[in-house]
Amino acid sequence: MYLAKVVGNVVSTKKKEELTGYKLMIVTIVGSDDEKWEKRIVAVDLVGAGRDEYVLVSCGSSARAALKHPESPIDAAIVGIIDSFAE
Amino acid sequence: MYLAKVVGNVVSTKKKEELTGYKLMIVTIVGSDDEKWEKRIVAVDLVGAGRDEYVLVSCGSSARAALKHPESPIDAAIVGIIDSFAE
Amino acid sequence: MYLAKVVGNVVSTKKKEELTGYKLMIVTIVGSDDEKWEKRIVAVDLVGAGRDEYVLVSCGSSARAALKHPESPIDAAIVGIIDSFAE
Amino acid sequence: MYLAKVVGNVVSTKKKEELTGYKLMIVTIVGSDDEKWEKRIVAVDLVGAGRDEYVLVSCGSSARAALKHPESPIDAAIVGIIDSFAE
Amino acid sequence: MYLAKVVGNVVSTKKKEELTGYKLMIVTIVGSDDEKWEKRIVAVDLVGAGRDEYVLVSCGSSARAALKHPESPIDAAIVGIIDSFAE
Repeated sequence: MYLAKVVGNVVSTKKKEELTGYKLMIVTIVGSDDEKWEKRIVAVDLVGAGRDEYVLVSCGSSARAALKHPESPIDAAIVGIIDSFAE
Repeated sequence: MYLAKVVGNVVSTKKKEELTGYKLMIVTIVGSDDEKWEKRIVAVDLVGAGRDEYVLVSCGSSARAALKHPESPIDAAIVGIIDSFAE
Repeated sequence: MYLAKVVGNVVSTKKKEELTGYKLMIVTIVGSDDEKWEKRIVAVDLVGAGRDEYVLVSCGSSARAALKHPESPIDAAIVGIIDSFAE
Repeated sequence: MYLAKVVGNVVSTKKKEELTGYKLMIVTIVGSDDEKWEKRIVAVDLVGAGRDEYVLVSCGSSARAALKHPESPIDAAIVGIIDSFAE
Repeated sequence: MYLAKVVGNVVSTKKKEELTGYKLMIVTIVGSDDEKWEKRIVAVDLVGAGRDEYVLVSCGSSARAALKHPESPIDAAIVGIIDSFAE
């Protein structure tokens, strides 16, 4: 999973119906010393994450498995909110 | 999903038949401060996106799920047009 | 799909039998202002592409779908020859 | 698989239930001359790996196969501890 | 597939049982003018590749297909030894 930070959200009216009902969060993938690694993706939120929270993001078919919806067009999902990380 | 911008389109006559009937759009993946992140892909358009619009792009098997065509050779699809994004 | 350019080919005698019979083309992924993005992959050719032609390359399980061979070890396939691209 | 180094762990209380019971390890992907390649991911530990150990990390649907749990939202798993690597 | 070069191997005693019996080779992905592209992965060898040989590496679910073992945790496999490549 990616270690990521929620930095915003996206509003999209014209979209595939299977995306309806999900919050679409913009996250950046956290680099080594917490500088953003510049990779940005949009993930659906499955655990109630909020702005500036650090989260776990699952991608690809594992994101669809998280949704329990094998026919979903979604390829990234927030699957956990991080309390702390120790390095 | 990728946050991306439609920058053009591709015309291809000699192609796998399953690609027929789709608009083939060139998109760039949006970087952090909106400079292009230089990653460019071609995605089929499923929601009527136009040039210069910001879109959501789903990749891999999730793109095939969006097409409802598990045997498709397509690995990237535009699945939403972005009204706004707040960071 | 990747927007790519055919730059050469590979000859491999000792290989998994499922690769037999396919032309193995070296392609580079096209960057923004047509400078190579330095990412190089080998894709099987499914549409008769030739050297220096611009092509569409599908990757991962979508490449296997293009082959109509779900048990294939192939993970990249040329699925279209590009007539033109407008940006 | 990635050649990676365990550099820490993550604690997450609010998460998808399928993540419960797994140690969530932060790993960095080892670059060429052992300097970190700055790519960091979180992988579940399946072999009892500890901090500073070099490990093999499997990603995507192969990580779910390692868990023997096709419906898992997990997309990265530590599948081996490295005794030595010779280059 | 990646165009890669075998640069070493890995020894791992504590690993998922499905990895047992395979040679675990370290490969680097070949960049444009043969300088290493710094991306290193570990792939199981399916064709008897040796050190310093150039090889074709298949990743993700295609690697599992090469093994004919859909439940394998392996996500990268050497599927061909390269006799020559012309650019």
